[in-house]
Amino acid sequence: MAAKPKERPSNLREACIAEALRVIEDAGLDALSLREVARRLGVSHQAPYKHFPSRDHILAEILTRSFDEFAAFLDQRPAGAAPPDDLRGMGQQYMTYARLHPVKYRLMFNTPMPDPDAHPEMMRNAQRAFALLRDRLTVMKLRPVGGPHRANASFDAMFVWSTLHGLASILQSDTLRTLQMSDRDLQQAISRCFARLSLALDPVD
Amino acid sequence: MAAKPKERPSNLREACIAEALRVIEDAGLDALSLREVARRLGVSHQAPYKHFPSRDHILAEILTRSFDEFAAFLDQRPAGAAPPDDLRGMGQQYMTYARLHPVKYRLMFNTPMPDPDAHPEMMRNAQRAFALLRDRLTVMKLRPVGGPHRANASFDAMFVWSTLHGLASILQSDTLRTLQMSDRDLQQAISRCFARLSLALDPVD
Repeated sequence: MAAKPKERPSNLREACIAEALRVIEDAGLDALSLREVARRLGVSHQAPYKHFPSRDHILAEILTRSFDEFAAFLDQRPAGAAPPDDLRGMGQQYMTYARLHPVKYRLMFNTPMPDPDAHPEMMRNAQRAFALLRDRLTVMKLRPVGGPHRANASFDAMFVWSTLHGLASILQSDTLRTLQMSDRDLQQAISRCFARLSLALDPVD
Repeated sequence: MAAKPKERPSNLREACIAEALRVIEDAGLDALSLREVARRLGVSHQAPYKHFPSRDHILAEILTRSFDEFAAFLDQRPAGAAPPDDLRGMGQQYMTYARLHPVKYRLMFNTPMPDPDAHPEMMRNAQRAFALLRDRLTVMKLRPVGGPHRANASFDAMFVWSTLHGLASILQSDTLRTLQMSDRDLQQAISRCFARLSLALDPVD
């Protein structure tokens, strides 16, 4: 039986999105172009343009879905936990997502992003992920610190996000290797970060 | 008077290092090669190899110097401050360095690094920057948290580093733009992060 020619994907739009993510995984964000996506799918150079006006539009679609997946992942926690435990659960989900999906995590937080104003759905989904964290902190009724604007939970969410993002990034960085910490020490360090976070938030009793 | 031909740099090694950093600034880390450095300096392709066996060696030299500069910058604080204020001063120096030197900051903490075992001076300087933070925390005699190994200041240094690195990275990220925070709110958020850090560290009185 003769080998079949490469089939044209039945849903070209979805095939483009999946292939674009593979381009980024294989060769980095700089390698992403609609031309490269078309080449790898074996379709004409013009074909992806029927669905995406530009490379930024396909990247924005990947980011829109990543923020959505990330927010849903943060929400996958046992129901009914007290607010401080629930926040810790969300923090652990955050760390797990970053570990399981390092490429999407970097796309969301560490690499150049298309203009948010030109891609409102991407912006909304990013805002929604941040709001999950902010709303958790609002429920916790934290003891106020830091002068005026003390009730603004967005500021506390920036702090929690900074610690989680910093830890997730450091754990994936080459810089960490220079410190030559054992796996056991690393686990202790992660636990310590969560313990210090709890102390920093110190909810009103 | 006739234009002089491009002069061969009198100190080719230093010229290579400076030009390599400019390549990274202009075109990103992926664009760095000894061939590109030679081309931009107007010297033969082979010339840089007299000083650097590989592209990794020139990158390691840039990193070695960056960690050294970064550590010296962290140390530029008013003398005689009480340990908690002194740590806050170091944190502010950290944030300022990241803002003033975003390319070197990303090289040290956010992009692939040459193998530390092959570049021991780079590794030593990275360790020295971390030790500055760890030693500050040792002096502060923090109230213990987080179970066993409580006296290990490296774990607390990982926490402080995570928060500072996360905050510095978020402030430079495109993701932040999706939140549409005003400059005033952003300054408040940074202050809040420092206030929460202080609360998290909570030294013994």
